[in-house]
Amino acid sequence: MSEILRIIPLGGLGEVGKNMMAVEYGQDILIIDVGVMFPENDMWGVDLVIPDWSYLRDKFDRVVGIVITHGHEDHIGALPYLLQEMQAPVYATRLAFGFIEGKLKRQGLSDVTEFHTIRIGDKTAIGAFEVEFLAMNHSIPDGVGLAIRTPAGLIVHSGDFKFDYTPTQGASADFGRLAELGREGVLALLADSTGAERPGFTPSESEIDPVFAEIFRQAPGRIIIATFSSLISRVQQVLNCAARYGRKVALAGYSMQENARIARELGYLQVPANTLISLEEARNLSPDQIVFLVTGSQGEPGAALARIARGRHRDIDILPGDTVVLSASPIPGNEEGVARVINRLFQRGAEVIYPPLAQVHVSGHASQEEQKLLLALTRPKYFIPIHGELRHLHAHARTARALGIPPENIFIVENGMVIEFENGVGRVGERVPGGYVFVDGSGVGDVGPAVLRDREALARDGFVIAVVTIDQASGGLIGHPEIVSRGFVYLRESSDLLDEAARRVEEALEEALKGSNSRSERSLESLIRDVLGRFLYDETRRRPMILPVVTSM
Amino acid sequence: MSEILRIIPLGGLGEVGKNMMAVEYGQDILIIDVGVMFPENDMWGVDLVIPDWSYLRDKFDRVVGIVITHGHEDHIGALPYLLQEMQAPVYATRLAFGFIEGKLKRQGLSDVTEFHTIRIGDKTAIGAFEVEFLAMNHSIPDGVGLAIRTPAGLIVHSGDFKFDYTPTQGASADFGRLAELGREGVLALLADSTGAERPGFTPSESEIDPVFAEIFRQAPGRIIIATFSSLISRVQQVLNCAARYGRKVALAGYSMQENARIARELGYLQVPANTLISLEEARNLSPDQIVFLVTGSQGEPGAALARIARGRHRDIDILPGDTVVLSASPIPGNEEGVARVINRLFQRGAEVIYPPLAQVHVSGHASQEEQKLLLALTRPKYFIPIHGELRHLHAHARTARALGIPPENIFIVENGMVIEFENGVGRVGERVPGGYVFVDGSGVGDVGPAVLRDREALARDGFVIAVVTIDQASGGLIGHPEIVSRGFVYLRESSDLLDEAARRVEEALEEALKGSNSRSERSLESLIRDVLGRFLYDETRRRPMILPVVTSM
Repeated sequence: MSEILRIIPLGGLGEVGKNMMAVEYGQDILIIDVGVMFPENDMWGVDLVIPDWSYLRDKFDRVVGIVITHGHEDHIGALPYLLQEMQAPVYATRLAFGFIEGKLKRQGLSDVTEFHTIRIGDKTAIGAFEVEFLAMNHSIPDGVGLAIRTPAGLIVHSGDFKFDYTPTQGASADFGRLAELGREGVLALLADSTGAERPGFTPSESEIDPVFAEIFRQAPGRIIIATFSSLISRVQQVLNCAARYGRKVALAGYSMQENARIARELGYLQVPANTLISLEEARNLSPDQIVFLVTGSQGEPGAALARIARGRHRDIDILPGDTVVLSASPIPGNEEGVARVINRLFQRGAEVIYPPLAQVHVSGHASQEEQKLLLALTRPKYFIPIHGELRHLHAHARTARALGIPPENIFIVENGMVIEFENGVGRVGERVPGGYVFVDGSGVGDVGPAVLRDREALARDGFVIAVVTIDQASGGLIGHPEIVSRGFVYLRESSDLLDEAARRVEEALEEALKGSNSRSERSLESLIRDVLGRFLYDETRRRPMILPVVTSM
Repeated sequence: MSEILRIIPLGGLGEVGKNMMAVEYGQDILIIDVGVMFPENDMWGVDLVIPDWSYLRDKFDRVVGIVITHGHEDHIGALPYLLQEMQAPVYATRLAFGFIEGKLKRQGLSDVTEFHTIRIGDKTAIGAFEVEFLAMNHSIPDGVGLAIRTPAGLIVHSGDFKFDYTPTQGASADFGRLAELGREGVLALLADSTGAERPGFTPSESEIDPVFAEIFRQAPGRIIIATFSSLISRVQQVLNCAARYGRKVALAGYSMQENARIARELGYLQVPANTLISLEEARNLSPDQIVFLVTGSQGEPGAALARIARGRHRDIDILPGDTVVLSASPIPGNEEGVARVINRLFQRGAEVIYPPLAQVHVSGHASQEEQKLLLALTRPKYFIPIHGELRHLHAHARTARALGIPPENIFIVENGMVIEFENGVGRVGERVPGGYVFVDGSGVGDVGPAVLRDREALARDGFVIAVVTIDQASGGLIGHPEIVSRGFVYLRESSDLLDEAARRVEEALEEALKGSNSRSERSLESLIRDVLGRFLYDETRRRPMILPVVTSM
């Protein structure tokens, strides 16, 4: 009797980030990637978002392994959270492990977890699955795709990918192997949709070299380059270019220093002799001898570049003649922050170079022509666009339809929608949990819609609190109402308004408490809310959150 | 003796929006545009941003006129606020007046203000200035550039512009006149920098026609098109296309209905017979006969498109087979909101078409080649890039340098930096106020950095309030501390945490109040802040705003 093969996306579908997927056959469950997502602008105060894996919680003992496709945060960042709940062997390439190890160490998890280092081309049996690690290109070394053989058929998972014929590090994707899999017969292809709206072919990493060379040739003073700290090949390009043009490179930003150290130890980064220096050593060099390679290419307020732009970096100030290069494109949602940093750098007198003014960055994700090539090589029966917002999944599906995949064989699903394969036939099955879990401080999952709604309201108009004490014996007011407010009006200039608000509350309460009929705290609170809300709206056209605190004594 | 000509940008330089400028010669001051800006993401709860015109406040009697280049909000939106403070004749083309009038009426200002309707090509003496209104192209009819003649020289101000050889409405920019001005001798060109990072030539409005035609030909069901309500030519294109393909158009969204009404009354919009219908009438038509033209192309949560996407629009639900067209590009900062709307529309089953998937929108602003053409035609001695963030001004300056304008004749300035011309020589002079004035509810300028910082903190971690009553006689605590919190933790699951917090506060206060030494309210407040802050951070790693309320009685 044939078992059902189930593919269960738990993250990364219908959103950007926190990629996670479960593949189920019989009793065995294989997990692919366990990433985090950075909060969107309306996830007020949330630090991090991790996948909702509550579907797996009563099935943890059936998990035979966790396969990591590459070492980016959106594929590994939630591992420490998952491994606190369950244990299973983790499979990843060496660089990904380098990045994972530090995280797990900080949580005391590195000793209890079973690691399997994989190499591109390896085939490994993991429970009911045979997993083959496929050479793909991406903006980090050793990113892999997966060929997953199950008794129900062969699944190909692209990981995050692009096709780079002239990568600056490592080899090209293994086109031949992908074609062989296609001949063998791919039941379903799951492929990265991030770049699905972009026509054409994503440029090769090596196209950046001449652009960097030109910048290095012309820059009169120091060069400050911001990029993703995990983009080791870009770091290598900067080091090479610096060595060629007689400059030294100093790294700024924790993750830049840390990732470079790990990549160097593992042999992914070759530092030309006498090229890497410390920030202190950079002080003694003339401006035309210096390159700073820094974090903060996404405009993150706490990272090195934003601090430099605000004049708040301990080691790096903008000097006249400095050239700043943003070797990155803003991830959707970060545009405003990146623009602010660029503007501030100009304000401080730097020359700023950024895409599209110059091709100082290329995407790590396939554009439409590469997505077509992957489809043409693997010739899948079913196609499941993964990794992306719904708009990207739909654009990718459009491409697949154009290549002749029948619409009914394309599954556009969101997290938690199970895809089942039985006797070679696929269908969309049940829906399991698959949403956001918010991490805020040390709390995982304790901040939900109610708290976020409050934060949103507070962000808009602040709050006003009225503290009132009632004499239990007499039923009258003790003292005067006290009004406390933040984020509503500028307090120094609003004492009249708040005094009048207190007077209105007092008046209304005295009226209500008059006579013998005693009132419940709840009814007094609702009275205060009404009186105060109406008065403040009439005066200011704002609607602060109003909290009455009524104490009886 | 020669007077000094002073150009004083009060808005729109170093930012996008709230364009405003003063030109001063002798005793006379001419104001150009009085726009608003929509708040950026870190302007918490602010409704609107208007220019800081405090520099003009003691000079209002010297203002000889206010010239409006076109009827977009970022050029007219703050007029009602300015005209409440001062009065001067307003000069604008008919459509701009149409849009201004409603605003002023709502403020009771339309009767007291002196209006001068201008036509393209007019030359008008306004105080010491002779102002000529130049034909330019932009994404609204009748946008003008300005040639301002002063005894100190000729200034050309581009307004918002592009060059469109085949506009769908009105004529092309008057290249000949611009060239004549160039021959006459332009002392300074002030030109729109919005598109300065974009190479090439901005496509013509008419390039959208075949794209719309293709969509109308193929759409199986209803078509919903979202665009800027002021983009009258786009509205016209939709009406024309609907008439050609046998569809009726219904308008949704207040500003869409209102602007179309005004434009139609003034003859800027020609409605083909039997094409415009009401939302009610649309109910009786089959899907392939309907076009909805709606507001919300920027993803604004309250506008029609976002409500449709959330399933919250009174008249329009997404049906299978619907095609939604976003005939707009996201303004920087709106990307995330627009993406969310697109994703939700897909989720509801619509086909969604948006740039860059199809050319359903073109910019209203000049790209680099058009900026070069304007420079080449007017051949100014000095160049002042206007309208844009610093990054845009710098990109525009780079273009001007490439055309041979000496760097020392290019002034990249921000709001409030005065540019002076004397005997044909320009320089950057003093700095006057020129920042943001926030409008929040009915308050203008009363919300500043302190309030915004509080809102930011509240948005991040919410607040916790401890209410404590001290017995003046005994110096001891009356009752127990009361803890009130919002936006910090989910209250239903956190009663233990907050109870323990109250206990800690009580303990600390009892310790502090022990013995005879009475403590000031202030010192008790600071104690509560410390104890509560430390406890809550230890437990949650969050830092809510903490407010102690200590009452003595």
